[in-house]
Amino acid sequence: MVETLVVEGGLTLESGAHLAPLEIAYARYGDPSHPVVYICHALTGDAEAAVWWDTLIGPGKVLDTDRFHVVCANLLGGCMGTTGPSSTNPATGEPYGTDFPLFTMRDLVAVHRTLLRALEIERVDIAVGGSLGGMQILQWSLDFPGEIDRAVLVCASSRLTAQNIAFSKVARHAILTHDAMDVARMMAHITYLSEEGMERKFQRARRVPDADMTLHSDFEVEHYLDHQAKIFLARFDPGTYLYLSRVMDYYDAFADERPQPPTTKYLLVSFSSDWRFGTDHSVAIQRQLKTLGADSTHHEVESPWGHDSFLMNVPEYHRLVKEFVYQDVASAL
Amino acid sequence: MVETLVVEGGLTLESGAHLAPLEIAYARYGDPSHPVVYICHALTGDAEAAVWWDTLIGPGKVLDTDRFHVVCANLLGGCMGTTGPSSTNPATGEPYGTDFPLFTMRDLVAVHRTLLRALEIERVDIAVGGSLGGMQILQWSLDFPGEIDRAVLVCASSRLTAQNIAFSKVARHAILTHDAMDVARMMAHITYLSEEGMERKFQRARRVPDADMTLHSDFEVEHYLDHQAKIFLARFDPGTYLYLSRVMDYYDAFADERPQPPTTKYLLVSFSSDWRFGTDHSVAIQRQLKTLGADSTHHEVESPWGHDSFLMNVPEYHRLVKEFVYQDVASAL
Repeated sequence: MVETLVVEGGLTLESGAHLAPLEIAYARYGDPSHPVVYICHALTGDAEAAVWWDTLIGPGKVLDTDRFHVVCANLLGGCMGTTGPSSTNPATGEPYGTDFPLFTMRDLVAVHRTLLRALEIERVDIAVGGSLGGMQILQWSLDFPGEIDRAVLVCASSRLTAQNIAFSKVARHAILTHDAMDVARMMAHITYLSEEGMERKFQRARRVPDADMTLHSDFEVEHYLDHQAKIFLARFDPGTYLYLSRVMDYYDAFADERPQPPTTKYLLVSFSSDWRFGTDHSVAIQRQLKTLGADSTHHEVESPWGHDSFLMNVPEYHRLVKEFVYQDVASAL
Repeated sequence: MVETLVVEGGLTLESGAHLAPLEIAYARYGDPSHPVVYICHALTGDAEAAVWWDTLIGPGKVLDTDRFHVVCANLLGGCMGTTGPSSTNPATGEPYGTDFPLFTMRDLVAVHRTLLRALEIERVDIAVGGSLGGMQILQWSLDFPGEIDRAVLVCASSRLTAQNIAFSKVARHAILTHDAMDVARMMAHITYLSEEGMERKFQRARRVPDADMTLHSDFEVEHYLDHQAKIFLARFDPGTYLYLSRVMDYYDAFADERPQPPTTKYLLVSFSSDWRFGTDHSVAIQRQLKTLGADSTHHEVESPWGHDSFLMNVPEYHRLVKEFVYQDVASAL
């Protein structure tokens, strides 16, 4: 069940802009006396981690809600209960839209920390995130040593490449210039899969094998993209897409000097067929973490499902997370 | 200089539709008594091969217009002089738009052959094409043994993958639903480059390094995409984009039984960083050509410039084409 924390005083963003009130939608699973697992979601997620990440989170699963207290919040700028571009701007009584202030990865972290203070949770035993989720955790662990014991960063990045930014740019251009979030989503969806995964799933199958040629959807892969875009348009806010994609573009986790080594112990997982934030990104994170003197392990896992692998049942990946999660918290359970 | 052949009787397409009149815009370079090099252009090209392919074609170049007679036509469905969706539909006096009949790779070939008959050219010594250009030549050589002596297929494909079709689908959806050919072009442009090539060229450079964050273009790669889209919108027709991309989706060069082996000798070139029609596509073509008993050689050339490498100065690639072109025509020169 999603609950909402209302922070009347609001939040001052890294830019200096002040956002008030601030609402934070969050979900909790399991006994609050158990070790805390904090989940950060990716671009299009929400607070209900045990729903969208049910491959990993739930009773008896790798992140076992019978043994951990699992907490997840909708991100700042989100459209699933936390204040964002679709929220009402108190100054106008209308939705913020693109009047919403721009914000950064640090602001996303500030919202998570605000929630934890309100919940009287002082330390996160294990923080887990894929893609943008992992980026938030990386920023958090670097900025606030001592707050996160163990971090699982799955197909994360410490800074986007020119190609990554280019894809985000095209998505934003589609939304800003043509009101075409469906196009943005379709394109992004291709980048979350792999060529091999798409070939396995669709090949060149046509909906009606001997139908005449048409400019409209005919191949099964086309119908699939139409369907994905349709359900996405119905549930998601274009403003959130704009703002959260931009947070990623500007993100550069290791740009600042770090006088103090991170105390967090990291598990990095990347997937062989992920070409959005592939193994190179995790290798770069680990190299920087080593320079800072942090304890980290990186594994590339074979999987044909591209970037989306982090949401799928990939046994080797789940085994690695399970080992990492239980190796040191065993005494606390 | 571009000339135009008007075929009053028109052309009956593979679908049975009849298109009349048919205009074919073409360019010729060099002495008509020299061996014939026929160029087939890719999705967004035109008849002026010595302009858009000036890395390869011209006096003293690999395809030396002092030693060859080079011919190139704008494709059927094109918007650079040959009849296409932007041409006037004689039945209505208005541009065809999406009333233009759908057509196939064989129809593109039929137009090239119509031109050559009108020019009284009976045999092509060397046919050269990159991407969609190579696909036309492959179809032509398989359907009409004896007409093409030597073929250079650069980063071509004999059939698109689900991922290839998916990218085309998103481009068409952007055009058909949102009148957004700029978005289609931006996205396609990313797929013609490589991650490495983009990183070398742009990194994370910003137009104004310390400017405030914005949702609009800021990184150099964003300005580059804006610029590419702007010049493309000014020169290209969305209908051509729709129809020619669809020709590629339905193309399946080896779907039919071939009782007769091709007489053409093939050089296949692919590029290491091309992820649109990469080495797998050329390998698949060569495997099928071998099954048919055709003479073919394939080389993967190292290049960081992705699919666009075929238009660039990549010395190893140019050396291979030069060797292939001169090895057997030397006696004729």
